[in-house]
Amino acid sequence: MNFYVMTLFPEMIENGLHTSITGRAIRQGAIGLKAVDIRDYSTDKYRHVDDYPYGGGAGMVMQPGPIFDCYMDLTRDMLKKPRVIYTTPQGKVFNQKIAQELAGEESLVFLCGHYEGVDERILDEIVTDHLSIGDYVLTGGELPAMVMIDAISRLVPGVLSNDTSAKDESFQDGLLEYPQYTRPEEFHGRKVPGVLLSGHHANIEKWRREQSLERTWRRRPDLLEHADLTRTDRIYLESLSKDLDL
Amino acid sequence: MNFYVMTLFPEMIENGLHTSITGRAIRQGAIGLKAVDIRDYSTDKYRHVDDYPYGGGAGMVMQPGPIFDCYMDLTRDMLKKPRVIYTTPQGKVFNQKIAQELAGEESLVFLCGHYEGVDERILDEIVTDHLSIGDYVLTGGELPAMVMIDAISRLVPGVLSNDTSAKDESFQDGLLEYPQYTRPEEFHGRKVPGVLLSGHHANIEKWRREQSLERTWRRRPDLLEHADLTRTDRIYLESLSKDLDL
Repeated sequence: MNFYVMTLFPEMIENGLHTSITGRAIRQGAIGLKAVDIRDYSTDKYRHVDDYPYGGGAGMVMQPGPIFDCYMDLTRDMLKKPRVIYTTPQGKVFNQKIAQELAGEESLVFLCGHYEGVDERILDEIVTDHLSIGDYVLTGGELPAMVMIDAISRLVPGVLSNDTSAKDESFQDGLLEYPQYTRPEEFHGRKVPGVLLSGHHANIEKWRREQSLERTWRRRPDLLEHADLTRTDRIYLESLSKDLDL
Repeated sequence: MNFYVMTLFPEMIENGLHTSITGRAIRQGAIGLKAVDIRDYSTDKYRHVDDYPYGGGAGMVMQPGPIFDCYMDLTRDMLKKPRVIYTTPQGKVFNQKIAQELAGEESLVFLCGHYEGVDERILDEIVTDHLSIGDYVLTGGELPAMVMIDAISRLVPGVLSNDTSAKDESFQDGLLEYPQYTRPEEFHGRKVPGVLLSGHHANIEKWRREQSLERTWRRRPDLLEHADLTRTDRIYLESLSKDLDL
């Protein structure tokens, strides 16, 4: 899978994603990443790519021309037009399901906005998906693009080790994760829960499931509506509500 | 305002945030940023900071000891214990209101998890806030910390220019932004909407407000529930629903 990012800060993308797991995946060829500087397509000797907004208002707006030329150059040799994602707080909110869907694409192009926004006409012309990573305002579209690339990459075969990818399955039943413990057995007087040291696998599984259920119920009850619950899960959740009533 | 990040990838944080607007704010002293390598607090000659999970399961868990020592070292000279944010999909979902609240703190410490998670006991001991940037899984906590630092930084006085910060106010009525246009007046046969060229400020304001309302209504109707709407706004939204009925 190949990611292309149209940005004013290509080094931010390159430096940020060449670390850790995504960096290893790039070096091993499991994914490709290319960040292109939109300023390289400026037609002005000062490398300007923005101008004042029509109708007035604060800030500057990115012009359509340089973005279009950058896009044409990137996609010239592609047989199929790729999906083009514009990272914007005005978009649909990105989630794990969208990450799964996008992980099936061969190439993805990201357009990162800056200043007060991007001329609407270039969005109409080339963008296929408007996506937001959440309901907060950032200084630019680079961090959202990096977040999406990271979330999508780890779903591409060969990026995570088998061990870790198996772990994903458990997230997909829509519950929060249970707490984890490692060495030492006692830390500042706090002990690892006894059941985890028991070696009794069925009890460990039961404890972990109940911890996941309780945590989701306390912190993110909204997730329970769409979670994949068994009859035993429902009985346990009812017992939690009853405890609260007493 | 000072940000401290406890991480396994300090260079990712430093490189990612030293660009663009946050980079300028750091150089001008409006904000401070220090990323600390948790491995520097390993007690093992291979700089290990993780171990197998008690109770079995895939992956490795970050140990409590090195994180605790890192935290103590960071906060030794602080008069007041700072808020410590653990970036995790198990947390409360970060939004603009939380960003506003955190922008009032003097110092903030972020703890970035990796592998399968962090030993629960160190979270119980030092973490004050569990925050998630959205419902998707990432390879580590660094990008979420960078996203939150970016969102919070731009609300700190002196980080954005006056022009741009004034613009925030409009986001805060809870609607999506209207479309923006800049030069040229015609691009690939697409013209800038006539009203924006009219110079008639009242009409421009009306058009922009209606565009914001319509866009929010189409793309994110959930936001309308909490939006700050006038009587005229409500009448316009009703007319949109009626058009749909025809």
